[in-house]
Amino acid sequence: MLDICLLGTGGTMPMPDRALTSLIVRYKGKNILIDCGEGTQIMVRKSGFSLKKIDTILITHFHADHIAGLPGLLLSIGKSERTEPVKIIGGKGIKEVVKSLCIIAPELPFETKCVEIENKHEVFHMGELRIESLLLKHSMTCYGYSINLDRQGKFQPQKALSLGIPQRYWGTLQKGENVELNNNTYTPDMVLGEPRKGLKVTYCTDTRPCECLAEFAKNSDLFVCEGMYAEEDKFEKALANKHMMFREAAEIANAADVKELWLTHFSPSLNNPEDYADFACELFEHTLIPSDLQKTELNF
Amino acid sequence: MLDICLLGTGGTMPMPDRALTSLIVRYKGKNILIDCGEGTQIMVRKSGFSLKKIDTILITHFHADHIAGLPGLLLSIGKSERTEPVKIIGGKGIKEVVKSLCIIAPELPFETKCVEIENKHEVFHMGELRIESLLLKHSMTCYGYSINLDRQGKFQPQKALSLGIPQRYWGTLQKGENVELNNNTYTPDMVLGEPRKGLKVTYCTDTRPCECLAEFAKNSDLFVCEGMYAEEDKFEKALANKHMMFREAAEIANAADVKELWLTHFSPSLNNPEDYADFACELFEHTLIPSDLQKTELNF
Repeated sequence: MLDICLLGTGGTMPMPDRALTSLIVRYKGKNILIDCGEGTQIMVRKSGFSLKKIDTILITHFHADHIAGLPGLLLSIGKSERTEPVKIIGGKGIKEVVKSLCIIAPELPFETKCVEIENKHEVFHMGELRIESLLLKHSMTCYGYSINLDRQGKFQPQKALSLGIPQRYWGTLQKGENVELNNNTYTPDMVLGEPRKGLKVTYCTDTRPCECLAEFAKNSDLFVCEGMYAEEDKFEKALANKHMMFREAAEIANAADVKELWLTHFSPSLNNPEDYADFACELFEHTLIPSDLQKTELNF
Repeated sequence: MLDICLLGTGGTMPMPDRALTSLIVRYKGKNILIDCGEGTQIMVRKSGFSLKKIDTILITHFHADHIAGLPGLLLSIGKSERTEPVKIIGGKGIKEVVKSLCIIAPELPFETKCVEIENKHEVFHMGELRIESLLLKHSMTCYGYSINLDRQGKFQPQKALSLGIPQRYWGTLQKGENVELNNNTYTPDMVLGEPRKGLKVTYCTDTRPCECLAEFAKNSDLFVCEGMYAEEDKFEKALANKHMMFREAAEIANAADVKELWLTHFSPSLNNPEDYADFACELFEHTLIPSDLQKTELNF
């Protein structure tokens, strides 16, 4: 199960009634945080997710509304008595940016391990989770992320029986481990069916639509995507600032055939994004205009 | 008139229901901000004070809860279309810290002018306001500030008459300017009585009690002072972390003979500081346990 909370829905700057866009995902007691603007640590507290359990932080890009909260968050993780390292993944320069911001957090009780993304599309592993990054199309280098929990095929007892594998080894194979027996090696794929659809959450902000985006978000259970502007008269602004319209996010959601679209990163000029809920659902049926702290859980 | 708002009352880290300690003071349409932790810009918006009109930022020290919000605040001031410079006053290293934090705010539409405090006690001028700084006693170099609006003596018409100064020049002298007349120079002190008590607000956090503090805060109309802990069993913590107890702040308020004491910078462990209001008022009668966004105005 993936527990998910969209901590905020705002873009550009934190507002009194709208926190900055950031997503937290929990799996087996460990948290992944995507983006950390000013105030994100407060929203983590409000969400009920544990600061201490943040293992990995994915940074989309270095605009302040996506990273300014990092030193404060790291200090608060430190005060939670975490001692295990925290991995921070981001574009080229992430090490320097983290070091520079942490001039006010010089002594953390844990190590920060920065990982620089080098290619347009990369894959990282965090235990059973597979994290993918994709280069987006913004006014500075910016990455989208997907978090994937793959699901192996169903165990086929008749295959195990026909191979003569005693029942006491079945569990090992089901866990994905090999079994050595009488000089034979039995691998999980020998006894499992076709891999089944896993769980996938995709997070893309800030960006203009770009060609690989639908493919990247393909079949997501949840697609969290920026929709900075709703009203068509803001289209010039969207082009100029390299952001998206609600309708453009909906088009990608359609093309990617996602289960649900959550729009986010609303412009401070967009006072009531929920007024455009019907409009958004006409474009893509399963669209939600989320609130700060919108939660869901994804299950097989 | 000084318009004053205590933007937050918390210390250490921003909490869901308590913003970090920061004070904003408005005089003749210009704002001085003291400290800028994570979330301070949101509180400025909530307060109704103008971000654009922040002329001067006084930083007590470089712990994150007092400065982490600076790059975001500067960016938001920039978005308010300010083009006039912003002065930032702080301890030795302020230039480097501001530069380092502003790695995520590389392009501001105004200049930031950093001023490093070099001595234990300094005086700065901002128009008619006199700002004083005092070295405090914390775990790192830290300064308290007072903002003073001096008030000249009452105009004495009989003195002006006896000096033979025509009435049309009286206004000039009252404004504090000299008058040249028939090869004589008339200065304001010739026609004004003794200087009268002006307005004074003093802000001291983070610190242990120190000998000059009562003198520094002497006769303040408002003394905003840290009281990190209320309960006596936290005294060891106060000593270790170089903070103050409610009672210690009250002792200074008594010695300084201030008109009103506002306690602030409450520990996250102090859930309901208002429960200690009676206790605090027994120690110093005019003590307030303020809320975030507590406002007042000081008048002659």
